[in-house]
Amino acid sequence: MSERNIRIESIDRQAVEDQEVEIVERKGIGHPDSICDGIAESVAGALAREYLDRVGEVLHFNTDETQLVAGEAAPAFGGGEVVDPIYLLIVGRATKHYEGQTIPAETIALRAAREYLEENIPQLTVGEDVVVDVKLGEGSGDLQEVFGEDEVSVPMANDTSFGVGHAPLTETERIVLEAERRLNGEYADEHPELGPDVKIMGKREGDEIDVTVAAAMVDEYVADLDEYVEAVESVREFVDGVARDHTDRAVDVHVNTADDYDEGSIYLTVTGTSAEQGDDGSVGRGNRANGLITPNRSMSMEATSGKNPVNHIGKIYNLLSTAIAEEVVGEVGGIRDLRVRLLSQIGRPIDQPHVADVQVVTDDGVSVADVEDDVAAIVDAELADVTGITRSVIDGELSTF
Amino acid sequence: MSERNIRIESIDRQAVEDQEVEIVERKGIGHPDSICDGIAESVAGALAREYLDRVGEVLHFNTDETQLVAGEAAPAFGGGEVVDPIYLLIVGRATKHYEGQTIPAETIALRAAREYLEENIPQLTVGEDVVVDVKLGEGSGDLQEVFGEDEVSVPMANDTSFGVGHAPLTETERIVLEAERRLNGEYADEHPELGPDVKIMGKREGDEIDVTVAAAMVDEYVADLDEYVEAVESVREFVDGVARDHTDRAVDVHVNTADDYDEGSIYLTVTGTSAEQGDDGSVGRGNRANGLITPNRSMSMEATSGKNPVNHIGKIYNLLSTAIAEEVVGEVGGIRDLRVRLLSQIGRPIDQPHVADVQVVTDDGVSVADVEDDVAAIVDAELADVTGITRSVIDGELSTF
Amino acid sequence: MSERNIRIESIDRQAVEDQEVEIVERKGIGHPDSICDGIAESVAGALAREYLDRVGEVLHFNTDETQLVAGEAAPAFGGGEVVDPIYLLIVGRATKHYEGQTIPAETIALRAAREYLEENIPQLTVGEDVVVDVKLGEGSGDLQEVFGEDEVSVPMANDTSFGVGHAPLTETERIVLEAERRLNGEYADEHPELGPDVKIMGKREGDEIDVTVAAAMVDEYVADLDEYVEAVESVREFVDGVARDHTDRAVDVHVNTADDYDEGSIYLTVTGTSAEQGDDGSVGRGNRANGLITPNRSMSMEATSGKNPVNHIGKIYNLLSTAIAEEVVGEVGGIRDLRVRLLSQIGRPIDQPHVADVQVVTDDGVSVADVEDDVAAIVDAELADVTGITRSVIDGELSTF
Amino acid sequence: MSERNIRIESIDRQAVEDQEVEIVERKGIGHPDSICDGIAESVAGALAREYLDRVGEVLHFNTDETQLVAGEAAPAFGGGEVVDPIYLLIVGRATKHYEGQTIPAETIALRAAREYLEENIPQLTVGEDVVVDVKLGEGSGDLQEVFGEDEVSVPMANDTSFGVGHAPLTETERIVLEAERRLNGEYADEHPELGPDVKIMGKREGDEIDVTVAAAMVDEYVADLDEYVEAVESVREFVDGVARDHTDRAVDVHVNTADDYDEGSIYLTVTGTSAEQGDDGSVGRGNRANGLITPNRSMSMEATSGKNPVNHIGKIYNLLSTAIAEEVVGEVGGIRDLRVRLLSQIGRPIDQPHVADVQVVTDDGVSVADVEDDVAAIVDAELADVTGITRSVIDGELSTF
Repeated sequence: MSERNIRIESIDRQAVEDQEVEIVERKGIGHPDSICDGIAESVAGALAREYLDRVGEVLHFNTDETQLVAGEAAPAFGGGEVVDPIYLLIVGRATKHYEGQTIPAETIALRAAREYLEENIPQLTVGEDVVVDVKLGEGSGDLQEVFGEDEVSVPMANDTSFGVGHAPLTETERIVLEAERRLNGEYADEHPELGPDVKIMGKREGDEIDVTVAAAMVDEYVADLDEYVEAVESVREFVDGVARDHTDRAVDVHVNTADDYDEGSIYLTVTGTSAEQGDDGSVGRGNRANGLITPNRSMSMEATSGKNPVNHIGKIYNLLSTAIAEEVVGEVGGIRDLRVRLLSQIGRPIDQPHVADVQVVTDDGVSVADVEDDVAAIVDAELADVTGITRSVIDGELSTF
Repeated sequence: MSERNIRIESIDRQAVEDQEVEIVERKGIGHPDSICDGIAESVAGALAREYLDRVGEVLHFNTDETQLVAGEAAPAFGGGEVVDPIYLLIVGRATKHYEGQTIPAETIALRAAREYLEENIPQLTVGEDVVVDVKLGEGSGDLQEVFGEDEVSVPMANDTSFGVGHAPLTETERIVLEAERRLNGEYADEHPELGPDVKIMGKREGDEIDVTVAAAMVDEYVADLDEYVEAVESVREFVDGVARDHTDRAVDVHVNTADDYDEGSIYLTVTGTSAEQGDDGSVGRGNRANGLITPNRSMSMEATSGKNPVNHIGKIYNLLSTAIAEEVVGEVGGIRDLRVRLLSQIGRPIDQPHVADVQVVTDDGVSVADVEDDVAAIVDAELADVTGITRSVIDGELSTF
Repeated sequence: MSERNIRIESIDRQAVEDQEVEIVERKGIGHPDSICDGIAESVAGALAREYLDRVGEVLHFNTDETQLVAGEAAPAFGGGEVVDPIYLLIVGRATKHYEGQTIPAETIALRAAREYLEENIPQLTVGEDVVVDVKLGEGSGDLQEVFGEDEVSVPMANDTSFGVGHAPLTETERIVLEAERRLNGEYADEHPELGPDVKIMGKREGDEIDVTVAAAMVDEYVADLDEYVEAVESVREFVDGVARDHTDRAVDVHVNTADDYDEGSIYLTVTGTSAEQGDDGSVGRGNRANGLITPNRSMSMEATSGKNPVNHIGKIYNLLSTAIAEEVVGEVGGIRDLRVRLLSQIGRPIDQPHVADVQVVTDDGVSVADVEDDVAAIVDAELADVTGITRSVIDGELSTF
Repeated sequence: MSERNIRIESIDRQAVEDQEVEIVERKGIGHPDSICDGIAESVAGALAREYLDRVGEVLHFNTDETQLVAGEAAPAFGGGEVVDPIYLLIVGRATKHYEGQTIPAETIALRAAREYLEENIPQLTVGEDVVVDVKLGEGSGDLQEVFGEDEVSVPMANDTSFGVGHAPLTETERIVLEAERRLNGEYADEHPELGPDVKIMGKREGDEIDVTVAAAMVDEYVADLDEYVEAVESVREFVDGVARDHTDRAVDVHVNTADDYDEGSIYLTVTGTSAEQGDDGSVGRGNRANGLITPNRSMSMEATSGKNPVNHIGKIYNLLSTAIAEEVVGEVGGIRDLRVRLLSQIGRPIDQPHVADVQVVTDDGVSVADVEDDVAAIVDAELADVTGITRSVIDGELSTF
């Protein structure tokens, strides 16, 4: 029997799916805030892997503060240009000197950022359209936990922090999440005119779902207004199709509603991101760890991206509680809505949270008592394997935004 | 009768005060994230007032992206020094050219930031301990709304956005908020050894409240470890007293729990903020518009600080919903918990939200029907006066973090 | 007969070749100051060509202030790494808006800098080993001269400025210049271990010439100390050979004299430039327009690199006087040493200098009168074709450092 | 008798005073290049004094690379404003860690820069009109020489370098130097409308001296065009008076010749320096160590400002050769022109130059032999006291630009 303080109880509200009004948002990978999240996290992963490679364990770092200063662009049908480059400053701390070795943290960070941008915002020429700068302070050698290739210790919590996860996603949440992923996946592969800066807002009132998409079009692949209108309509149809896969409710999809064709005001970009023109960004201002912004649900303010995956309790608990929630609803039947909260206690190992608080809405005819033991077992097992989260993050297998 | 879409209904959960576990946090004004919030908002206010002064109306700007890169310090009993300065980059957009006039937006921003720092973090010598830099892009002339000295128009919502407010504060929330304010107010006036970087975490389980304070001590006023221990104990007693003013529950106050006197590891600083040593900061990562981080309550991810108070719908609705909530519980009896959500609709005036959704937990013996009309009247009146929020922000009368 | 104020007279000193002590220096293309010169000039050329391309004439700009902040590196036999990246800030002014067109000056500058670095310091990975940033203010639209594709006007001098050129080069000067060029040309092609940061100092006392070379070796191509010693000796022999081509005087070549093999202190680098480790650089601090630093000769303090080639009188006169000097000694016999000085007069066309002052040392048996007319004719013709210098600079055919 | 290699010989040219054409320039203390020189040198002095204070000896540093990026201003009669701030980046290396002590080099640098600016360009509000940033790499602990409070060792030359000094100044040189100093001294005290950015060009042809002054006027103290014209005329008269003190030759003084009153194009500034509007600056691009740019004389390209005064051979030899030249003409009669060149030899103490080469033009009736011994004695004594130069620089008693 587990020693962990795990509580399973009934949640004191309706399942979000059953609430009258629901709002969900996702900022796509090309959104300025997501660009910062993505770079912060890819820098963190690169540092962690390099530390393991060079000294056999992960040293102290945190790179959760990338700041993006927007540029200025002159998009034009057929291809415009970036006029003033975007400025992107990678901020954080990293251990640069350790037992006689020098670790080129800033060079590693610059390389990771460049590779991330080239992979995810390919229209953006690094070094021309965007200047990537870096200021990493020296990390403190005192703070590291042992997380090595061979040996792993469960770190102590050094902060009172809080992580929260939910499952299953509501229909609206699934639509918003899937629409962005598939637009930036299969759809973009076939439609180079769609840039990665796709922002999706889902709003459900009762059984009517409105999906509003702001989609940056890439001017190089749009010859004129007709093609633009076509591109917008094509996105609308695609998202409509995605929505149909996830709901039987009424769905209304709107794309680029701020456009004004008469005034020639459309969402045309050179690089596929609004960062090129006036939209600044920073880490932790967009999607939560599960990829969504969900005002109907409890959320953590902690930025997850860029934090050290070995000992940053907020990052670990946000990712872990999400993983637990997903596993529980995958394994245990009869759960309509579930929230997992993990609260740390300073000075205790992080696999022993102050409380692991699981609140469920069960399906009709199912009681909390029916599922309690199964849920507790999963929570216990996941906590026991808390360092698995760290490993997955280092290996780049977990998304943080 | 109002034309506005105002809904009053019962909330589908317990009052937060009655929930079993409650977590509340506040980052004090000297916390790196709060420094960024404070500068962003003071820059915004200064710009708005200068625009009114120079051209008679508020022009387009947004300065919600200040980034702080931590420095390095060598604190010492009796007075140490900052070794590597903090770097602070003010980021955003502002209209610099308007009808033949040139507005020195960057100079205004630098001045506002300096004055803010000198006022709020006086131990920090601007230009020595902290370098303040600025990158403000040119704001778009197309985006301004008419908000002039004489004439005010209610702007149209140009985004789907969401604001949320709550009242009344729970005991734990009041304790956390008040403790920080009074520590940074009357207490600091008498105790110069207390720096403005005070972070307070409140945790309630049932009827037991734990208050954990991380308080940066200023080395100049701390001669030795004994004085440090005394200073910590003095903060503990003061916060304990504040807590007693707000609750009859059991309260346990902990201050600087991460200290280790044997290892000489204490929370001693040169400037009273952890920004001097390794703690980066940015806007919108800390307190929500009501000054608190409240995972038990619905929160908006929008950064409020630094946004344009004339037309940024997220800022206005967050501040307005908070104001509505507070006024309702002040004016109308029988309400135990109340949440106000305002959801904008693109293209409609912002005093006509898509929905103003008020959810209440009433006291025993009071029904929603009993209070409905009074609540609706207040919501209606506040919405009618939406530009009053803008005015208050410009005048610096509303706190945003 | 020319209207130009051209004076030909005897110089009041010995030919530099006949002076007792002569000092000459050249900073190779990989020296931090030369990197700045090279980038400043390549940015200037790129801007000029883009302006011609886009608006048909060269608009106002000056990009003569690139600053390089050195990095930190950890070279190692067989290949080390850059630990802290070099920071390079391109500074200047450029016209960004002209008759409704927007010219992406900063993007152009970044591209030119990157291409220049990739071409000339190939070991340096742009965006990892070096961060290239840019701050170009808006150039003044009032200042441009007409220098178009079809139409060219001779600009007015708007400053009192001064250019100076010399010919022929002394033996020592030729050795220094040629040694660097050939080391960074044919020699480096065959010897990848030689980096582009080659600094050569020539010192002649009477008939003894000392050539001191500081040559940055690239660690990737140097397996151990033996190979390093070999590489140094190989450079010495090569430079010795170059020197023999230009003089019959006694020549002594020293390479990397600051090395101390016992202490392991050698000139080994990761990228082939000392900019990677502690040596900052900026424009105009190194070679004069003829590629040399020659304290025995009159020099201009003006930075030539990065200046606008259409209307910057200092740049034009330095390059033109050098061209005149070289042409005169090429065409006219009997000249042992020659100095051309051009002094501008504010408000007059630049092909009408206040004075063109040619001072010669003739060979024995030749008088100034013998050569005066031929010299004057060349000076006159070159001045008449002053815009040819501008054209050559824009086409990248003239070296400025 | 001295062991030093001191040569006294006749110079192989006329005294500059007797040459037909002479050009001299001085950039006043408010010129962008001089601002950089001044800050670089004041930072260097501050560091040297702090090192002495803290560890008893001067540690390794070089801060000779300050870069100024011009701002944008909107001057107006009666007082305009800076629109975009000047950006000033202090660049260099400094030892930050030494025997367990941490030296706050960047904070020291920022303070020195601020104090320098407040003292010398008082119209410029630091932190509003100008952003001062700093990037100082870690200096190498290996490089220091012992220069302590009690013990001083003569350092070894670690570079082949060269210093040159001249005396006496010609009339034109004295006029240019004195005019700037007195304008920025007694004149500015009485005439607040004169800014510190005063650039003076002297040109002598035979016995006619033209003095051209570019003087930045401060708008706050100039009510209208009439007052501006008056201010210009007042400067002209003052400089004319200065010139009369130093010469009987014909003098013509021109002030702000680029003004065009009809077009309203005048040299009016907010802060008294052209750095506020488009004129960038950097170290070592302006005045040589004797305060002048003198193309008629041999000049060193070395930047003197900001270099380490203990072991930077170029700085020491430039200052020392100037001091020697001045002392010789002060002590020894019959010398019309004198040039002192000091050439270092790697690995020998710097008081033992490879050669100290003194070239003189004697007055009619005086031979080199007449003065040779006296001159040699002074050179010898000054070399023996080479560390006195270092001491004077550290104490801020020697001007470097």
